[in-house]
Amino acid sequence: MLTSARNEFAGKVTAILPGAVNDEVELTLAGGDRIVAVITRESTKYLDLNIGSEALALVKAPWVILSTPDAGIKFSTRNRLEGTVKTVKSGAVNTEVEVSLKGGETLAAIITQESAQALGLAAGKPVVAIFKASHVIVGVKA
Amino acid sequence: MLTSARNEFAGKVTAILPGAVNDEVELTLAGGDRIVAVITRESTKYLDLNIGSEALALVKAPWVILSTPDAGIKFSTRNRLEGTVKTVKSGAVNTEVEVSLKGGETLAAIITQESAQALGLAAGKPVVAIFKASHVIVGVKA
Amino acid sequence: MLTSARNEFAGKVTAILPGAVNDEVELTLAGGDRIVAVITRESTKYLDLNIGSEALALVKAPWVILSTPDAGIKFSTRNRLEGTVKTVKSGAVNTEVEVSLKGGETLAAIITQESAQALGLAAGKPVVAIFKASHVIVGVKA
Repeated sequence: MLTSARNEFAGKVTAILPGAVNDEVELTLAGGDRIVAVITRESTKYLDLNIGSEALALVKAPWVILSTPDAGIKFSTRNRLEGTVKTVKSGAVNTEVEVSLKGGETLAAIITQESAQALGLAAGKPVVAIFKASHVIVGVKA
Repeated sequence: MLTSARNEFAGKVTAILPGAVNDEVELTLAGGDRIVAVITRESTKYLDLNIGSEALALVKAPWVILSTPDAGIKFSTRNRLEGTVKTVKSGAVNTEVEVSLKGGETLAAIITQESAQALGLAAGKPVVAIFKASHVIVGVKA
Repeated sequence: MLTSARNEFAGKVTAILPGAVNDEVELTLAGGDRIVAVITRESTKYLDLNIGSEALALVKAPWVILSTPDAGIKFSTRNRLEGTVKTVKSGAVNTEVEVSLKGGETLAAIITQESAQALGLAAGKPVVAIFKASHVIVGVKA
């Protein structure tokens, strides 16, 4: 673990889509899951990102929304990773949910205890983890 | 509740302002409160958003800043919803504050216990809930 | 404290870089630390920001990632503030870490308890606080 971000996904850059201001960088993880990050063009250069570069996608646990695949809802977010609940750890206010992603990685989300109960989250339940591409931080080993 | 986002506001699209890269989408809730989201143009198309479309604005509780109306401060954020504190639930580190918005909806914010004490938050206290338009996720029922 | 944002840094605007859509606003704090915010051009006008203007940079504690200077990693984020851990307060799920920045200010981060343990965070340990410029909210006294 190189940072406090609970989600520190190592992958390879598989696409870089230049926009008017920002670049959209796609990372593919070892297990096949894909994560999209929106970063400034300067950051793409600073990190020297190219197709095939090894990089990390950092996503803090409070930035992740969980939903269920049968919720019947479409989202504006680029990142929608499917998995099943692995563990649920409740505090007084917040609950930490670990999700086993399809590709084999583990993702952590912090949600309120009330949300965890309302969604009936428990080990084995299928979920979708949702987060904005603009929230993802990209890192590379120096 | 369709997702773990504690704030899941149902409304109708009342404005779509196209920008150079992103669209600014305004949702008006049943009670009249308005929420602005910045999403990519592709997302606007993917969700088939038009004036009058029914949509959800998703805002996680840790993304919301609370202030008091008399704080004498202007913010760079598009979303500034007025209300009064409904409940305060303290944990060891974080505190969950529910706010009754002017339009009748309830908004939840997670702030640190220290901030809750410093602001003297208690039921009945008037507050302003602040969050960035770029943090709002838009959803539509499929 | 004017808002619930634990990090409410007062400084002066030392640079405004206009982009295609957004402005990049740099604040320099009294102790010399610099914080970059990305806000819409409309917000820059609304807040009447100019070089030398006094302003606040608001950053909620859950938006901050902590890393160690020796982690050997480069990040896409504009804000990377160096300091040392001042206090660590653990809850059941989350941990609050206060960092004494080089310039003398105190920064608070909320991370998971597991991350705090994995990084071995304790008073006196050197850390880097990382957050996206697009997450920073700018405020000015009215």
